[in-house]
Amino acid sequence: MIRVGIIGATGYAGAELVRILLAHKEAEIVWYGSRSYIDQKYASIYQNFFQLVDAKCMEDNMEALAEQVDVIFTATPQGFCASIINEDILSKVKVIDLSADFRIKDVKIYEEWYKIEHKSPQYIDEAVYGLCEINREDVKKARLVANPGCYTTCSILTCYPLVKEGLIDPDTLIIDAKSGTSGAGRGAKIDNLFCEVNENMKAYGVASHRHTPEIEEQLGYACGKQVLLNFTPHLVPMNRGILVTAYANLTKDVSYEEVKAVYDKYYQNEKFVRVLEKDICPQTKWVEGSNYVDVNFKIDPRTHRVIMMGALDNLVKGAAGQAVQNMNLLFGLKESEGLELVPMFP
Amino acid sequence: MIRVGIIGATGYAGAELVRILLAHKEAEIVWYGSRSYIDQKYASIYQNFFQLVDAKCMEDNMEALAEQVDVIFTATPQGFCASIINEDILSKVKVIDLSADFRIKDVKIYEEWYKIEHKSPQYIDEAVYGLCEINREDVKKARLVANPGCYTTCSILTCYPLVKEGLIDPDTLIIDAKSGTSGAGRGAKIDNLFCEVNENMKAYGVASHRHTPEIEEQLGYACGKQVLLNFTPHLVPMNRGILVTAYANLTKDVSYEEVKAVYDKYYQNEKFVRVLEKDICPQTKWVEGSNYVDVNFKIDPRTHRVIMMGALDNLVKGAAGQAVQNMNLLFGLKESEGLELVPMFP
Amino acid sequence: MIRVGIIGATGYAGAELVRILLAHKEAEIVWYGSRSYIDQKYASIYQNFFQLVDAKCMEDNMEALAEQVDVIFTATPQGFCASIINEDILSKVKVIDLSADFRIKDVKIYEEWYKIEHKSPQYIDEAVYGLCEINREDVKKARLVANPGCYTTCSILTCYPLVKEGLIDPDTLIIDAKSGTSGAGRGAKIDNLFCEVNENMKAYGVASHRHTPEIEEQLGYACGKQVLLNFTPHLVPMNRGILVTAYANLTKDVSYEEVKAVYDKYYQNEKFVRVLEKDICPQTKWVEGSNYVDVNFKIDPRTHRVIMMGALDNLVKGAAGQAVQNMNLLFGLKESEGLELVPMFP
Amino acid sequence: MIRVGIIGATGYAGAELVRILLAHKEAEIVWYGSRSYIDQKYASIYQNFFQLVDAKCMEDNMEALAEQVDVIFTATPQGFCASIINEDILSKVKVIDLSADFRIKDVKIYEEWYKIEHKSPQYIDEAVYGLCEINREDVKKARLVANPGCYTTCSILTCYPLVKEGLIDPDTLIIDAKSGTSGAGRGAKIDNLFCEVNENMKAYGVASHRHTPEIEEQLGYACGKQVLLNFTPHLVPMNRGILVTAYANLTKDVSYEEVKAVYDKYYQNEKFVRVLEKDICPQTKWVEGSNYVDVNFKIDPRTHRVIMMGALDNLVKGAAGQAVQNMNLLFGLKESEGLELVPMFP
Repeated sequence: MIRVGIIGATGYAGAELVRILLAHKEAEIVWYGSRSYIDQKYASIYQNFFQLVDAKCMEDNMEALAEQVDVIFTATPQGFCASIINEDILSKVKVIDLSADFRIKDVKIYEEWYKIEHKSPQYIDEAVYGLCEINREDVKKARLVANPGCYTTCSILTCYPLVKEGLIDPDTLIIDAKSGTSGAGRGAKIDNLFCEVNENMKAYGVASHRHTPEIEEQLGYACGKQVLLNFTPHLVPMNRGILVTAYANLTKDVSYEEVKAVYDKYYQNEKFVRVLEKDICPQTKWVEGSNYVDVNFKIDPRTHRVIMMGALDNLVKGAAGQAVQNMNLLFGLKESEGLELVPMFP
Repeated sequence: MIRVGIIGATGYAGAELVRILLAHKEAEIVWYGSRSYIDQKYASIYQNFFQLVDAKCMEDNMEALAEQVDVIFTATPQGFCASIINEDILSKVKVIDLSADFRIKDVKIYEEWYKIEHKSPQYIDEAVYGLCEINREDVKKARLVANPGCYTTCSILTCYPLVKEGLIDPDTLIIDAKSGTSGAGRGAKIDNLFCEVNENMKAYGVASHRHTPEIEEQLGYACGKQVLLNFTPHLVPMNRGILVTAYANLTKDVSYEEVKAVYDKYYQNEKFVRVLEKDICPQTKWVEGSNYVDVNFKIDPRTHRVIMMGALDNLVKGAAGQAVQNMNLLFGLKESEGLELVPMFP
Repeated sequence: MIRVGIIGATGYAGAELVRILLAHKEAEIVWYGSRSYIDQKYASIYQNFFQLVDAKCMEDNMEALAEQVDVIFTATPQGFCASIINEDILSKVKVIDLSADFRIKDVKIYEEWYKIEHKSPQYIDEAVYGLCEINREDVKKARLVANPGCYTTCSILTCYPLVKEGLIDPDTLIIDAKSGTSGAGRGAKIDNLFCEVNENMKAYGVASHRHTPEIEEQLGYACGKQVLLNFTPHLVPMNRGILVTAYANLTKDVSYEEVKAVYDKYYQNEKFVRVLEKDICPQTKWVEGSNYVDVNFKIDPRTHRVIMMGALDNLVKGAAGQAVQNMNLLFGLKESEGLELVPMFP
Repeated sequence: MIRVGIIGATGYAGAELVRILLAHKEAEIVWYGSRSYIDQKYASIYQNFFQLVDAKCMEDNMEALAEQVDVIFTATPQGFCASIINEDILSKVKVIDLSADFRIKDVKIYEEWYKIEHKSPQYIDEAVYGLCEINREDVKKARLVANPGCYTTCSILTCYPLVKEGLIDPDTLIIDAKSGTSGAGRGAKIDNLFCEVNENMKAYGVASHRHTPEIEEQLGYACGKQVLLNFTPHLVPMNRGILVTAYANLTKDVSYEEVKAVYDKYYQNEKFVRVLEKDICPQTKWVEGSNYVDVNFKIDPRTHRVIMMGALDNLVKGAAGQAVQNMNLLFGLKESEGLELVPMFP
């Protein structure tokens, strides 16, 4: 039984880790970390866990935790993990960081977009970017996994095959993303009040959202050159779900079948990426509660562009589910253990 | 492996049976019945099951089905199951009927409230009312289970202990219920369009809803006399969830502890009924996606009444989950097999 | 032109006052008071008013304001108006208080339910309870109007005719109310975040909500004796709207026509109260954005009870609209001036 | 008093015409046309109009109507207006067609995208495209106005100034649009049921939506050459609102101030187009219920693109409001008469 500690267990991503791990046969949570709710019963913060979790919240103490567990998930604000990680901790436990601290290899880009000084740049190289479908083998050997962002996971998996195979011109890539509100976290902010979000829609972080360089870096690896793209997130009045609509110029005339073959080449053996049938557009509800990413595409012969679409649950494949998938890889378990969650509709 | 057939698999309750049974270790679905979508791939009707279900929809043929399966779920409109059930079928398979056909013992009351002639009154006596927490032993021996209604399950479990123990006067019972829209089914009706339901709330079926006599009959058994009560359902702009707020006069002065003890007497060993802690009001979101019913109460010393509250997911404990719970009882499986679903929040 | 000052203009009720008064032909807002946003442009707090309001927020200074305006609306937390009102202010301007400070005539009951010491009990007697349909003549002569609560307005107008005429036993009255989330205000609280409210429903303040004594007092005047009743509010995932479902025992056998005649007696000349046609249940969406209250009832001959239903927009007839209606009465304007808002559907 | 007839008064756009015209001082509705509800009281179909509209629905008879009114609004399915319009009708009344029949000047393009034979191509040239801000003078002289589509209005007004002034390359234009569900109409379809739309988001009509050629034609006029672009609509779980996010390559280096000046050049005197302040992204809720379009933009120096954003209420400026604006122009009334609706928030 793998012993798990969660730092930041009372955020939405932390709570989703709890939901998933409660049904995981080879892991048990022994530490529910929280800065805000120390000594309160965890189930009093998330009453859905009433009678399922008896533990109280403990402080976010990574040093103490490293003595007691096999793996630590940090579902914490940017900068926290980097400020506290050290060799001693990494020698004792695996760390899966759900924040952005170790996702970007160029520390200057990190500091520029996040406006934070990076406190542990020495671990950036070692950290493995935990997008399992792409970096599976590296994850297996890692000590420190940088769990990808929610928008990032959806954006990359949606575009990856066509970028990798050179079917699209990455310099023309435009990613228009739409997210449910849980991505904004459980902080008490006016902007996230029900009455501000319901019956409303808006773009935010236009030309400045922090997931941009993360997407650019990963797609840059795929095509072997620097990528600059537009990424625009939008807030949607729903709890969960990210939908990505991505546009790019085709580099040559291609048929539906040719593009489909490229997607299949990368994903037909991937349990969690479902390439939909022709003309079926992904819907976030079809993946809600599950670890699936649904992708599809449409060629527009009039404009010589392809429209790529992807949908996932931002708290599962976009955060906690992918983190558990990484844990399974780290410990040699079946990759889908605990993640065979059937999407809930309606 | 128990072989399962579903008649009416393309309604919301049918689809929820599929979601639950896909993760059930001792059952497999071999027949996805549907009147409207014969020969279409089931996963094309509910794309959440893409790559999880390969089967096509088959016609709603109970006779043919009885030859092939161990249990049939009928998630069909009122009157269908009664019109087609017969001794031959019952001699071959167990039947769990999610419609109201066999819930009410007095056929006249059934016909009066449902405005339908009952086609198989000879099986009404034999049918067991499948509210597992109350009729567990009878269910185990049944051939035909009448799976309770969604409002009914929530209403009865919320009030049962106090009615049974005589702490409230059943003649003063008023049940004000609120339901998500999935309870209205997947039929294409203007009243259930997004724009008609969203940002809106209404009562309906006031003093005439068909779940009223079902609640009255079951609570009548609990107190040993006829019960007449008011039941008012309301439509709420959410997909899933029923919330019941019930009011009744107390028959004597009681303390919080005394009432709590009565609830605990009936529910402390019930996995799926959670009596919340003092002053915590049930919320539908805390049980969403799961088979739990959360209940609690508040004594009002000013009016000498008790306010009882209950919440469940209408598609799980209010329909498909309870049906699977009944199946588990019928076949001697662990009662919670396939139902250890952790509620999803948010 | 009546000069208007609003104290608490940046809450939802304050913003709704602005929306209504911008279209009012005989009033102009000259003071947008706010504790939190002093010196910021009002339209930067509520961007819907961009290019419609140029003013900046000013501090909540009632003394200074009294010099400049004809009427002050206080849309402020409980206790504020009572703490600051004085003879000097009342001698200069009319005051319409949207808080509860002057709604309850018995100061002990106020202090008990609100847990606040009342700072100006000397004005309680003078204050007129501004439920226009019932206290119209008194409002016209008032200096200080206590604008009713949102739940209260809906509850009283729904039940008033039958209580007044003795058709129901007020001791059996149970009011089950459902409200949109704007009633909770614009404060940044976790409980009111989108993800906590959406796809969720709950009761709150059970047997303890502060609108209870206000309803009891007013219905007590109607029937000439003390009333104790149960009032239970619920939070609904919608922005606006209150729906009341009220239950009471009939005092005698009555027909639909008799009860209808009683409702018509009180409301047929009331522009803002619409008694719906037989069997039509009020829906909050049918009054959204308007000053209407829709009411109706259903007799249940089985239980000898009547179910009374009412719906209004909590920010209009439940707050700002009623406040403007009171202003119109105070200044001898047409009562519906600025309030002929057509409900918006969908 | 202008006498108004509405054909298709029981769709959502028709009902919005009623809402707006009820408050219009110089127009009165004398004919509520409906195919589905003939002889039923209009207010029984839309109960928000209870006591506000007494009329019954009449058949959709344009010939008879032309005798009785000054202007006819056709809020009908594609093809209807073209199939019935004739010289006799046009000689008697003004016609404002809310369908697409006369929006596209090239009848082949119309027939190709709409899969309908055009029955009155002889009136296409005469019809004026009723985007008031651009074609104001032509509208004033028209007999037949083609009222623009909802997506189209938002898309064009968002991009028009930069296309017109040559600041962007129209061949690189990508328009990603998001719409509330009322745009899908009141037809009873499974896809538009509450449970299918709520907590869900999807693209639809990808590379094939019928508003594409309409946008292309109008922007083509602006830049003086043919435009081919990508337009992708998405369905959002809200009732009202369209949000457009448009991307295009800048044709030269420009500053914020330069681009702002271009927007101001076209819109600073336009009452209904609000160019927001720097860095403020439009939100659909800020225009809900009103005739405003809010637009803004963001330059991305990294990619040399500009992101243009626009928001409107699809039933007001996207349909009925713009139709009334056209009516006001046709009859020489104040252009904003009946349209000074303050946006409702929340």
